[in-house]
Amino acid sequence: MTSSHVSREALQRFIQTAFLSQGLPDADAAQVARLMTEADLQGSDGHGVIRLPQYVKRIQSGGININPQIRVVQERAAMAVIDGDNGMGHLVVSRAVDLAIEKARTAGVAWVSTRFSNHAGPASLYARRPLEHDMLGLYFAVGNANHLPPWGGMDMLLSTNPISAGIPTDQEPPVVLDMATTVAAYGKVKAKAKRGEQMPEGWMIDREGKPLLDPKRANEGFLLPIGEHKGYGLALIVGLLAGTLGGAAMGRDVIDFNADHKTVTNTGQAILVIDLSAFGDPQDFKQSVDKLVRDLRGSERLPGVDRIWLPGEQSHEKRQRYNTAGIPVSDGVMTELNTLAAELGITPLNEMATA
Amino acid sequence: MTSSHVSREALQRFIQTAFLSQGLPDADAAQVARLMTEADLQGSDGHGVIRLPQYVKRIQSGGININPQIRVVQERAAMAVIDGDNGMGHLVVSRAVDLAIEKARTAGVAWVSTRFSNHAGPASLYARRPLEHDMLGLYFAVGNANHLPPWGGMDMLLSTNPISAGIPTDQEPPVVLDMATTVAAYGKVKAKAKRGEQMPEGWMIDREGKPLLDPKRANEGFLLPIGEHKGYGLALIVGLLAGTLGGAAMGRDVIDFNADHKTVTNTGQAILVIDLSAFGDPQDFKQSVDKLVRDLRGSERLPGVDRIWLPGEQSHEKRQRYNTAGIPVSDGVMTELNTLAAELGITPLNEMATA
Repeated sequence: MTSSHVSREALQRFIQTAFLSQGLPDADAAQVARLMTEADLQGSDGHGVIRLPQYVKRIQSGGININPQIRVVQERAAMAVIDGDNGMGHLVVSRAVDLAIEKARTAGVAWVSTRFSNHAGPASLYARRPLEHDMLGLYFAVGNANHLPPWGGMDMLLSTNPISAGIPTDQEPPVVLDMATTVAAYGKVKAKAKRGEQMPEGWMIDREGKPLLDPKRANEGFLLPIGEHKGYGLALIVGLLAGTLGGAAMGRDVIDFNADHKTVTNTGQAILVIDLSAFGDPQDFKQSVDKLVRDLRGSERLPGVDRIWLPGEQSHEKRQRYNTAGIPVSDGVMTELNTLAAELGITPLNEMATA
Repeated sequence: MTSSHVSREALQRFIQTAFLSQGLPDADAAQVARLMTEADLQGSDGHGVIRLPQYVKRIQSGGININPQIRVVQERAAMAVIDGDNGMGHLVVSRAVDLAIEKARTAGVAWVSTRFSNHAGPASLYARRPLEHDMLGLYFAVGNANHLPPWGGMDMLLSTNPISAGIPTDQEPPVVLDMATTVAAYGKVKAKAKRGEQMPEGWMIDREGKPLLDPKRANEGFLLPIGEHKGYGLALIVGLLAGTLGGAAMGRDVIDFNADHKTVTNTGQAILVIDLSAFGDPQDFKQSVDKLVRDLRGSERLPGVDRIWLPGEQSHEKRQRYNTAGIPVSDGVMTELNTLAAELGITPLNEMATA
């Protein structure tokens, strides 16, 4: 599949213009565009501009509040619950992270939950935000469609509920984990189907419990959790922490936002921020992490393995490469974005400055 | 393998007497004995009385401080770091959990890290403690021996670093997750070897990257993380949170406490406690969890599956059963405990009241 490269600025401007055309306030359109572009810039291309048509469709269907009153509804020294008033998830979670950082500065540690939020892009965008403050972030989210049954079951009551962690370093790239609690995220299944490829065994099973390899038959089966019952347990706990605790949807209440563009999703996320300076000298911590990173990277490899990667290192490299060389946008996505641009009456992305 | 059943009281008294014979203060011996017995009572038999000979050996080798000054060395409204002064891990972590509960009562959320702690038994013992206060617990620990290389590597720089979560319910058994970030905990490998059984594929690989099935050859290979690179990432993050953050050992600094009975382990653990009442009415939360538990348990099953279990439900059932029927102690373990009793000059467990 061929692709073209667009500059970060062009992509961001395109997204921003699209949201402005839908009535989002200037600052909100800019912020969502910046975060979605950051997603593509770090290679999280299942969560960046590819989602724009879906977001626009949801706004047009009345499924997003473009003028939300995002507000704190519960608060103590080290926690808060934010009601997103069904605004764009990126705005709601950004508020949550900012508030958690502020609270962690005095309390040392802070947890902020969201309710009535929406899909907010890749988890790591938010887990990474505390890093520049010498803080670390742990992020939990309820996925926006249930594709995972409990272990042994076939009723899809759980989502791919991701966990993300951002850990500050000194000289090394930050350690950033961003993982679904299923073996494969559902977006990867969809990508296999688009490319006409088979899935490896272990991604999905069918209703007989047998391996499902054809991604075009994905709706006849379910995703598998990592580590069998363990991943099921993790998905459940993440959902309880990110959803139930803050009063957001979990289990049967989760809306499939790929199929339903209108119903309020009541999406929940949660961010935990830890201020390193409460534990000692942040520099000591960051240097210890550097040392560990180098020990792991430099350690003995299995036959045939070229390199040992740290979590977040590949995204870090992509961010640097795409910043200079431009962000790749596949022809398929570009066609969809051109169709969208025509519908919205805005300049198409491929007519904006390309890198 | 046959086993006998001992009452909870007999087991606890036996452990307590053993520790008293080693000079542990009365209250400390009682507390460690109570927690170790709780481990066996919930079926965590790799972390209960089976560890007693090893603990005693470590005390006798000078590897444990029997009169520790456990103290808070860093503190803010929602966090603390506790220096365990190389005392028994059960005592250090108990202090950490108590302090986190106290702080969460006002701050809403609290995180307490330990350093210079030791092996403390099953993670779920501590994640469950906040439940009776209508709080939830998340617990992270650095394992006490490195059996896991980074993904693609063969240098065992990581441990099975467990995650545990305790979530309150109303009528249902609490949801309690307690999982190693490896497919199998190392104790399960040792149990297979003892029983002369082969391991299933997926537990371990050898230095060629090929499946290792013979548990007697375990020292020629490594454990595999759950979900391949994902479990590696999780083990790393758990280690950074439980070890590095609080100034405890991680990576190359971790002591293999099965082989080395003397060197200070500087074990680290971390507990996060969240007070439900900060988020709303705890009863609402607990009823939501009940509903979710029932939805999951009652959902459609794959062919051949008898029952869908919730995390912690099997331990809950064991706790109830063993409370009445007694705790099973295998003949092999009983023999080891009898040898220990003879060495220490205390009444053997099998001569105490059996259930």
